[in-house]
Amino acid sequence: MKTECSNTSTSACTSLFFEPKAVAVVGSLREGFFGGYVVVKSLLEAGYSGSIYPVNPNYPEVVGIKSYSSISDISDTVDLVIIIINARGVCDVIREAAAKGIKAAIVVSDGFAERDAAGALLQKELVTLGRQCGVRIIGPNTAGVACSWEGFNPCPYDAGYYRLKKGSVAVCSQSGMTNPQAFPYPASRLGISRICDLGNKCDVDECDLLEYLEHDSRTSVISMYLEGITDGKRFIETAVRVSRKKPILVLKSGRTSEGARASASHTGSMALNDSLFDSVCRQSGILRVDEFADIFDIPKVFSMQPPIGGNRFAAVSYTGGVGVMAIDSGAQYGLVPAKLTAETCRFLDGFFPGLGTNPVDIGPMAVAIKNFREVFPQIEEAVAKDPNVDCLLNVLWCDTLGASAKVYLEGYSRIKGLHRKPVVTWLYGPDPDVYSKVAAQVEDMGFPVFSSAERAMKALGIAWRREEARLSRSA
Amino acid sequence: MKTECSNTSTSACTSLFFEPKAVAVVGSLREGFFGGYVVVKSLLEAGYSGSIYPVNPNYPEVVGIKSYSSISDISDTVDLVIIIINARGVCDVIREAAAKGIKAAIVVSDGFAERDAAGALLQKELVTLGRQCGVRIIGPNTAGVACSWEGFNPCPYDAGYYRLKKGSVAVCSQSGMTNPQAFPYPASRLGISRICDLGNKCDVDECDLLEYLEHDSRTSVISMYLEGITDGKRFIETAVRVSRKKPILVLKSGRTSEGARASASHTGSMALNDSLFDSVCRQSGILRVDEFADIFDIPKVFSMQPPIGGNRFAAVSYTGGVGVMAIDSGAQYGLVPAKLTAETCRFLDGFFPGLGTNPVDIGPMAVAIKNFREVFPQIEEAVAKDPNVDCLLNVLWCDTLGASAKVYLEGYSRIKGLHRKPVVTWLYGPDPDVYSKVAAQVEDMGFPVFSSAERAMKALGIAWRREEARLSRSA
Repeated sequence: MKTECSNTSTSACTSLFFEPKAVAVVGSLREGFFGGYVVVKSLLEAGYSGSIYPVNPNYPEVVGIKSYSSISDISDTVDLVIIIINARGVCDVIREAAAKGIKAAIVVSDGFAERDAAGALLQKELVTLGRQCGVRIIGPNTAGVACSWEGFNPCPYDAGYYRLKKGSVAVCSQSGMTNPQAFPYPASRLGISRICDLGNKCDVDECDLLEYLEHDSRTSVISMYLEGITDGKRFIETAVRVSRKKPILVLKSGRTSEGARASASHTGSMALNDSLFDSVCRQSGILRVDEFADIFDIPKVFSMQPPIGGNRFAAVSYTGGVGVMAIDSGAQYGLVPAKLTAETCRFLDGFFPGLGTNPVDIGPMAVAIKNFREVFPQIEEAVAKDPNVDCLLNVLWCDTLGASAKVYLEGYSRIKGLHRKPVVTWLYGPDPDVYSKVAAQVEDMGFPVFSSAERAMKALGIAWRREEARLSRSA
Repeated sequence: MKTECSNTSTSACTSLFFEPKAVAVVGSLREGFFGGYVVVKSLLEAGYSGSIYPVNPNYPEVVGIKSYSSISDISDTVDLVIIIINARGVCDVIREAAAKGIKAAIVVSDGFAERDAAGALLQKELVTLGRQCGVRIIGPNTAGVACSWEGFNPCPYDAGYYRLKKGSVAVCSQSGMTNPQAFPYPASRLGISRICDLGNKCDVDECDLLEYLEHDSRTSVISMYLEGITDGKRFIETAVRVSRKKPILVLKSGRTSEGARASASHTGSMALNDSLFDSVCRQSGILRVDEFADIFDIPKVFSMQPPIGGNRFAAVSYTGGVGVMAIDSGAQYGLVPAKLTAETCRFLDGFFPGLGTNPVDIGPMAVAIKNFREVFPQIEEAVAKDPNVDCLLNVLWCDTLGASAKVYLEGYSRIKGLHRKPVVTWLYGPDPDVYSKVAAQVEDMGFPVFSSAERAMKALGIAWRREEARLSRSA
């Protein structure tokens, strides 16, 4: 069996972590907010259709599911074992799992290399054992994985939500911060394919994930938070290949020498020279980002919108001031304000004097004319179809009653799918409850909404950076 | 009368805009979401205790308040007139106001220099008239002002909220984007003294505001969005003086040449060379910021916390990854991770092995020990009182039930007011409703909460930038 798994391709092994048909959960089954009990409950609530085998000799059942005294008592085939017990017992479970023919283990337990020297030794033992007996390992010290399409959300913490919005963005991380117990996925409306916390990444690493996601039909965009890289050469080779198929966004911490030192200490892994990493990104087509929020909202411009064809943007803005700020933001990414065609300008000026200028400042008109509801969709369409415009920013004010929302939604429906240009949006106003609801409606129509004009422009800018790299390769 | 007002000091005139005892409102009194009717309603709902005189010959009363046919019909003294009528009628109202002895006018009406050449001429006429007859003008094309302490919120748009949280931050802007109809002040929990949109700033400008705010006892921090500056020399002289008393944060758009051109066009004012403005800021002690959000949350570190005494920060973080990101963020502003004293390290390690390192990673411990509730306040206190620590970042995870919040609040009460060091916080978790409620509780205790670890570190960084400038002056 050892030989068999050692010879299995990495990718085939890795898929067991994300699409298992049967999973064993080894840990405490006591009710609480953390542990094996929560994993089983999360899986049930998330609608997981595979088999669940809780393992704990002290409990006959948990949440209505039969519990087993040991892994060997399970008669069916098991693809994956999730381990949440004291660190010192983990190796025994791995041995038992291997004997059962299990080839994938998620080790949630902490107390390994991130803790102290004794933990580092234990982790070394774990790695050696996993290799010997053909068990691939995610972790230790991980919050694990989650997959929306399969309802596979074995979250070990009670996050209060279980079903993730189905989508094509994979979020992979060297931290639990991107897992459901920490990040408000439902409120962010991010359509997810896979989530994975690599933890101490004693075995499965960012390259294994990239190789798996390369061929994962559910995933179209890959978003990563990394603190270090296991194998630079392999990472570049893999990223070069994968990034041509799917955008890869990477946030790397430890950008400063102080940060790098702290990073090495808390995951027990080697940190990476930052300028070296910058050149790795350039060589391999990785889109490097610099804020935590970037890995959650920037992917939307790729997963929800068509590719960007050029760097000329138009803004339709309820406020002139933000139009100006958008120009400043765009300039940081090489985006320039589009010069609208004479035809578009004439058409817009026909509605209101001075409207035919980019940024298109609709604020003064909106309160002055009677038929804004009929006019707005025409403005949207005229700007979106202008041949001088490659992409569009909407900055839209939401009144307290949501009345303006109807007007905007008509505008979006007018341009939806017609012009093959990315459209990004910032909604604002006096009441967050109102504009959040409108944002959900706009996103339901397929148009991503960002938390500021600057963030919306950043998304267009990162999209343009990817297109620039493609153009320079084909030049 | 002309002579009298021309001789009145600028500051005395400007106070009429923010602390009027009686205000006339000239505009449509028809129910709607914009106009004179809304101004009157907003004032009543905001609890304004001064006299309100609606002026419109077509209405005998509005919202239960007697309306006047003309300004001259009002028998009492009026401090300020708010004008929301067609641009072409504004000059007549100014003449009438001057005849009544009114020395301050807010011209909400648009259709002036921002519109076209005819509007620019009209604006010129307005300025000349105001100077001739001794009426100072805010606007035109402005959303006006708002003052929390006086309940003076004459918002011309129905923003759905009227009472602003009382506080000491003045937000001044060359855009309506910072006024109540556009920005969710209640949700942001920002304690406000004054809000002012200068609009086209044909008369009252950023210097007049600075001079007024310098002596305004309600204001301790000044936050500004500017697109240009009326008089560079006067601005520097004023800012040098005022910034030593009160922090001045400025976001200026038009940072790029494209942005500057667009800016000049939309307010009809001259734009400003950006690198020149940078040197103006350095010379005058202005804290220049670069994101729209900065003018709303960064002020909290000044208004709610003691001054920063040095650049050594500690982080108490539920997650090691964010601790590392915080170090990266801090480095951008010259903040360095504090080296905890041996005493603090020993004390922390006593709770959990490895805890005694900055960033203090409380995550592994929180799930492992039984008495986290008793331990957390002790950790907070030990770190806050460490003589090597100048300021503190808290990164705290909120579970779905809010149970962890009680623990955190005990921690804050333990350090409140004791150590005279700024403390900033990021709260996160799976449920925004939960962590927003906790954020409100933490802010009620006087500790500002930010929307990310990066933003919290930026606030400390900007605080340190102010202290650095002070140190270099006294060196």
